[in-house]
Amino acid sequence: MDHFWGVIPAGGAGTRLWPLSRRTSPKFLHDLTGSGRSLLQDTAARLEPLTAERLMVVTGVRHAAAVREQLPHLPADQVLVEPTPRDSMPAIGLAAAVLEARDPDAVIGSFAADHVIGDPAAFQECVREAVAAAATGALVTLGITPTYPATGFGYIKVGDPWPGARLARQATEFVEKPDRETAQSYLDSGAYRWNAGMFVVRAATLLDLLGRWHPELADALRQLAAEPATLDQVWPSLTKIAIDHAVAEPAASAGRVAVVPADFPWDDVGDFASLMSLLEADDGGLHVLGPRDQVVSVGSTGLVAAHSGRTVVTLGVDDIVVVDTPDALLVTTRERVQDVKGIVETLQQSGREDLT
Amino acid sequence: MDHFWGVIPAGGAGTRLWPLSRRTSPKFLHDLTGSGRSLLQDTAARLEPLTAERLMVVTGVRHAAAVREQLPHLPADQVLVEPTPRDSMPAIGLAAAVLEARDPDAVIGSFAADHVIGDPAAFQECVREAVAAAATGALVTLGITPTYPATGFGYIKVGDPWPGARLARQATEFVEKPDRETAQSYLDSGAYRWNAGMFVVRAATLLDLLGRWHPELADALRQLAAEPATLDQVWPSLTKIAIDHAVAEPAASAGRVAVVPADFPWDDVGDFASLMSLLEADDGGLHVLGPRDQVVSVGSTGLVAAHSGRTVVTLGVDDIVVVDTPDALLVTTRERVQDVKGIVETLQQSGREDLT
Repeated sequence: MDHFWGVIPAGGAGTRLWPLSRRTSPKFLHDLTGSGRSLLQDTAARLEPLTAERLMVVTGVRHAAAVREQLPHLPADQVLVEPTPRDSMPAIGLAAAVLEARDPDAVIGSFAADHVIGDPAAFQECVREAVAAAATGALVTLGITPTYPATGFGYIKVGDPWPGARLARQATEFVEKPDRETAQSYLDSGAYRWNAGMFVVRAATLLDLLGRWHPELADALRQLAAEPATLDQVWPSLTKIAIDHAVAEPAASAGRVAVVPADFPWDDVGDFASLMSLLEADDGGLHVLGPRDQVVSVGSTGLVAAHSGRTVVTLGVDDIVVVDTPDALLVTTRERVQDVKGIVETLQQSGREDLT
Repeated sequence: MDHFWGVIPAGGAGTRLWPLSRRTSPKFLHDLTGSGRSLLQDTAARLEPLTAERLMVVTGVRHAAAVREQLPHLPADQVLVEPTPRDSMPAIGLAAAVLEARDPDAVIGSFAADHVIGDPAAFQECVREAVAAAATGALVTLGITPTYPATGFGYIKVGDPWPGARLARQATEFVEKPDRETAQSYLDSGAYRWNAGMFVVRAATLLDLLGRWHPELADALRQLAAEPATLDQVWPSLTKIAIDHAVAEPAASAGRVAVVPADFPWDDVGDFASLMSLLEADDGGLHVLGPRDQVVSVGSTGLVAAHSGRTVVTLGVDDIVVVDTPDALLVTTRERVQDVKGIVETLQQSGREDLT
């Protein structure tokens, strides 16, 4: 494990969690589970037993200062700052190129800054298994055991055992978010796992695979690692593309992707319904994020996020979602949480970008 | 009309309008209609064409400063301050005794500080009629034309024309808040009107009538008018009783009460459903109290009171009631507005009196 580096892409606005999550302060910077730590800090803490100080965060210019503040022990050269968002492939690829230059045998494990994992020890065990499989030249992903026919996640189709591996198997296909019926068929078949966007791979392997389908991008990233001073100039010209499309999908077709089955509880905290499921309910069925003594609930179910210091009282409301922040209040229902994204667009279009 | 004095009892906590209305800042001190004036200021303005400067406000010691601030032109001796709440009879009776001492022919018209009236000119016309009837020695009340079978108001049974009056009739009975069925029968009969607690009567008549059923109270009030320095000492010993029970009900039985039919829109703003009905709805059916541009509503109906300066967003919630103040937020439904009173009790019992 001495060559293993944790890589944390810390991006994404999390607009479906507005007004908790903002462009200026996205969800990975917030404590959304009541743990006392932000999702980013939780992600770093979860990796620490595996990586010690071998951790690299890739984030946007807008959030670099907050990331450094939340992870004060991280050396300055372990925060890579993207001048503009170019999606996940350039972000993770840059970390891979920088680490390959430091250590040709580096293995990277990329884990989003804003996911929640319920059993860190099980996670660490899976990552160890993935690192072993990555040593054979595979692009290794962790495939989460699906617990319901989710339509909000992509899936990985699982094939034969990976040659020489203890638990890893062939990943034969990555599939997009399915409709409800297809999701149910995936669940019934037992052959599919959730794609949580977790990749473990030798840095050199990732860049070599990228070089097969996007040679200019692989070259540019390696060039940037050699001449970091050119970042601002070169970065905007890079292809904006997700790692799934750029590498994972074609590599799966080419038989180069392994999947380690993962049984730990996982959630991408994509919306308030997801957030609700991560928080204990009180006796009456209300889930509270924030100081419990600031919420008075009579005959109410749903979610209250009390983030303004004020007292929040709910009376006789079912499946309600109340998100209270110092400058904005959202009241909606569990049924409509997917539409919160549209509220952010409405605010931007009506000249209230300051609230987004 | 030169002997006519407006009397405004300004009391009551309005707990069903929490958190807008508080013990420390009850509803009569607030602008609940978006008029730019508080209910108290509206009440005073409505009387001004009839009374000029002949206006007397009776309020509690806790609110005297706020009353003086809201009505800065009112002379100091026209704000009577109750050391403790003793219900409406001692409050209105004290005003009557003080005014009787100033002018033996004084006629008083008592109108609560926290009601809303839709047509001030019609109100003024009714009061003129009531003043004329009061000159004949009647206790005159204004009886509001009921527009639905309300269970939240008392009713007045209307009898024969009052001798010599143009519009006034005998009030044969005051009845308590009825159940739904009884209220419907009142409405169907055409013989009942809402009791809005508005009384017009010669000050001397009121005290003489009070003297028939509560002689010690009538004596004490006249004594207090003669020796105001004894107020703090005497006041706590007075009977705590409403004017309806003390005088209006027995006087009706004795044939001494007249009722002037009143067709103006009236509301006691007793709860948030009542408040909602006073505010225009937007195109989607949401009623807003406060700055309209601080409320963003998508597919929502109900009431939003935006009183904290923050932006309030409602998404897909029906018949919702959201009341946003700087230190407390209430989220409930139109159906449950009667139960808001219980929230105030809950807060008091759990040591959060500061919020009530």
